Order: sequence, then structure tokens, then C-alpha cells
Amino acid sequence: MNYSNASPKEVRQLIREGKITTQTSGMCDGFAQGNLLIIPKEHAYDFLLFTQRNPKPCPILEVGDVGSRLVKTMADNADIATDIPKYRLWEYGKLVDEYTDISHLWRDDFVYFLIGCSFSFEGELLASDVPVRHIEEGRNVPMYMTNIPCVPAGIFHGNVVVSMRPMPADQVIKAVSITSSMPRVHGAPIHIGDPEKIGIKDINKPDFGDSVTIKDGEIPVFWCCGVTPQSAVMSTKPPIAITHSPGHMFITDVKNSLLKD
Amino acid sequence: MNYSNASPKEVRQLIREGKITTQTSGMCDGFAQGNLLIIPKEHAYDFLLFTQRNPKPCPILEVGDVGSRLVKTMADNADIATDIPKYRLWEYGKLVDEYTDISHLWRDDFVYFLIGCSFSFEGELLASDVPVRHIEEGRNVPMYMTNIPCVPAGIFHGNVVVSMRPMPADQVIKAVSITSSMPRVHGAPIHIGDPEKIGIKDINKPDFGDSVTIKDGEIPVFWCCGVTPQSAVMSTKPPIAITHSPGHMFITDVKNSLLKD
Repeated sequence: MNYSNASPKEVRQLIREGKITTQTSGMCDGFAQGNLLIIPKEHAYDFLLFTQRNPKPCPILEVGDVGSRLVKTMADNADIATDIPKYRLWEYGKLVDEYTDISHLWRDDFVYFLIGCSFSFEGELLASDVPVRHIEEGRNVPMYMTNIPCVPAGIFHGNVVVSMRPMPADQVIKAVSITSSMPRVHGAPIHIGDPEKIGIKDINKPDFGDSVTIKDGEIPVFWCCGVTPQSAVMSTKPPIAITHSPGHMFITDVKNSLLKD
Repeated sequence: MNYSNASPKEVRQLIREGKITTQTSGMCDGFAQGNLLIIPKEHAYDFLLFTQRNPKPCPILEVGDVGSRLVKTMADNADIATDIPKYRLWEYGKLVDEYTDISHLWRDDFVYFLIGCSFSFEGELLASDVPVRHIEEGRNVPMYMTNIPCVPAGIFHGNVVVSMRPMPADQVIKAVSITSSMPRVHGAPIHIGDPEKIGIKDINKPDFGDSVTIKDGEIPVFWCCGVTPQSAVMSTKPPIAITHSPGHMFITDVKNSLLKD
């Protein structure tokens, strides 16, 4: 089943019932998807400041009230603890387990952060005939750890994670121009060309997601990625954190076109 | 003495020495100025979330580390406790006193927030022949309390404060277009025309700053204003807060042109 024309409400309901547990790329065409981090209130100030100091990898879409699972502005009647297909539980920076529902893990002091996702600009790229290889090949977007440090804030530090889309040189300018106008979903690329310059040793072995074909003469283009908070969790090692599983996003009721500045 | 061509560093030094205690509009042509709020760490998360939920009135330029008076990214070698011409001390939402230096009030748990200022886009307006009346008339910009509520966050709530610039109808579109591209300094206007629609009873009696001439046929154009945190302090009544005095800003080393998106 292809959910590209389904409504976010329908798909979230199927996710809530455990009937969708896959990655969400291509679902609910035109609607924004979001990355997730949940941490206790004790560390929420440091993380919110981290997002403020690192707006390209961590553009905030919504922050929940302390203890609240309710999504207020980005969706109608959504529950952040059940409406994502796959969650990751982290303890002291280590991935402990994955879940399709985290109701049983929820705590009164948890705060959720929804962070913009590059899936939002892929529709805009496709509409302008810029190729999006991982969609063409039916895979998850390739994501890589880099050697680019985030600006630290309180306990939080770590390197930027990027997503990569290869394209012919003559499409790169168009891609920069289109994504520059969407700062709430990572904005313009952070790097173009040589992967080694940003610490990526093997472009065919992404740290998250799937590898994609890079055709002869194509240039890899790198955007900041909302998996960066997971990199920060690995570096910072807080006692507990919950994130989405890369590619398994929260689907909002907000159209991508409304995330333009 | 006119400081329009002086460097931010020189002017901050004169402010630090108590030799400039006036409002800063028109000083250090081309360089961004910032609004200030200082609060204890205890309330810093709520305020940071307030700025995240209200980015038009409260676009963050920099947040200090807990207890630090040092400005790191917006200026070189600046001290937030001495480098603003006039400060306001607030206790339980009441204005207690004004100071030209707050070194003696500084606490180890204080956090400062520097917030973008509409002075930054006035140079862009003038460069496009959009009139800026309060500069023409040598006054402080007129600012008003409105009936537009901010999105609350934790303890913080209050109404949006706006600044107003009157202009002929044929300049309004240009003004919207120019300021739309500068979201870090309040971005596009929040209202155009009838002041009563946003709760302003007498356009000739601003709540902060000075009144300016509105010529026959001119339309008042309203932008969100960085005095909004002071409105939130008045509504929220935290035990202690320190702000700049309206119009008496922190002058940064960052050019306005770099605050475009």
C-alpha cells in the first residue's frame, strides 16, 4: 500500500494502531514530517538552547508542555507517544531498544521536541525537476555523521548529521535556491562535493538510512539532518532520551508550503 | 555628536564609561542593535520557550551561558552588564529603577537574552526610499501595547508590543517585501492600517518612545517589537528581571545585512 495520497490523520491512526511501522518517506504527499527528541525537563533548557544555537540541524517545529503528550500546533489530536512508527530508547548515550509505542515509558517530567525534516523540501525539489535519488530507488535517505561540531549548549554537544542527495552540477544551484527559502526544514545545504571534507570516509556506507546510486558526474549535496539530536545524545550521554528511529517520522497536519519563510 | 559613522566597539566603550546614556537609534550605521532581557536560570527555560513560540516579537540573536556577562557571537569583548546605555530593573512586574550600569546587580544565576531590533531594517527601508519618520524627526520610534496575545510558555504570557512607521500607501508593499526577508529582526509587519483593530486607542500617545507625525493619507504600519519581553514581564510578574530601557539598545558588531535569511 502506498500512502502518498492518504491524509496525515488517517496515517497517524494506522501508526497508532501498530498497522504502519515502516519509514515514512513519501507518505502524505505535501505534508511536513518531523524528527523527535524526548528528554526530562531537567535537561530541556540545555536542549532548547542547543536548538537555538544550531538552527540548521535543529529547526524547532513545536515543543510540548512539560509532561504533555499532546501535539498542539503541528497536528490535530495527535499523541507523540503513539503516533510515530518506530521509537528509540537511549540510556547514557547507548541505544537500548526500539518500540512502536512508548506509552509505557512516558513520564510526567518528559518534554518533547519536534524538529523539521528534509523530507519537507523533497516535494519542492521534485516539482522543479531536481532528482531525489532515494525516492527514485525506493529507499530511506542516506545520512552520515560528520566532523562538523555543533555549537554546544549546557550538557549538549556533538557533531552535525547530514542527509545526502546526489545530482548533476546544473541542478545544484536550483537545489540551493529552493531549500534556502525553507529554513524551518534545514534550509540551504551545509556542504557540496567532496565527502571527506566533512569527515565522511565512505559515501556508500551511510551511518543511518540506505545508500543510493551516485551516477557518473553527479555531485553529492549535503543538508543538515534532524538526526543530529541523536548524535548529541550519543555524545552527551544523558541518563534517558527517546527519539524517533531515523526515517520513521511524525507526520504533521501542516503543509510543507506553509513552512516557507 | 552624531555616532552614525562610529564603530560599535567605540560606542560600546563610551557607553561602558557612562559617556553615552541616550537612546541609540541611528548610531553605528549598518550594525544590528539588540533588545535585552535578563532573568534567573530558574525562569530561563520558560522564557526561551516563549521566544521559540513567539519568534516575530522575540527573534533571538544570542543567549548567554548561565552567569556569564560575556557576549560571544554578536560582539567582540562586550559586557552585557555595562555596554547598554540604560537598563530597567523589574521586581514582580513593576519597574523599580533605571541604571546605566548593572554590574552591582549581576548574579551568578542570571541568563541574558539578546533579541533582534527593528532598527536593523530601517537602513534597508531608507535605502529603498521608504520614509522612516522618527529618524526624519530625530525621535525614538513610537511603540504601543496591543491586544494581540503572545503564545504563552510556562510562566510567561503577555501581549505583543509593536513599533509603528507611517508611510504612503504605495510604499507599504515595498516595506513588507523588504522586511519579510529579515525574520531575525521581526520580519514582515504584523498589522497595517486601523490602530484600533489591534487595541491601540490613540496613535498619538505611544506607550513607549515618542509620537511622530502621520501625514494626510499615510498608513500606519506596525511591526512586532523587542519590547514585548517587557510586556511579558509586566504580565508575568517574575520576582526579578532586567531589561534595556526602550530605544537604548545593545549595539552589536554584526552587520544588518548578515541578518537576512
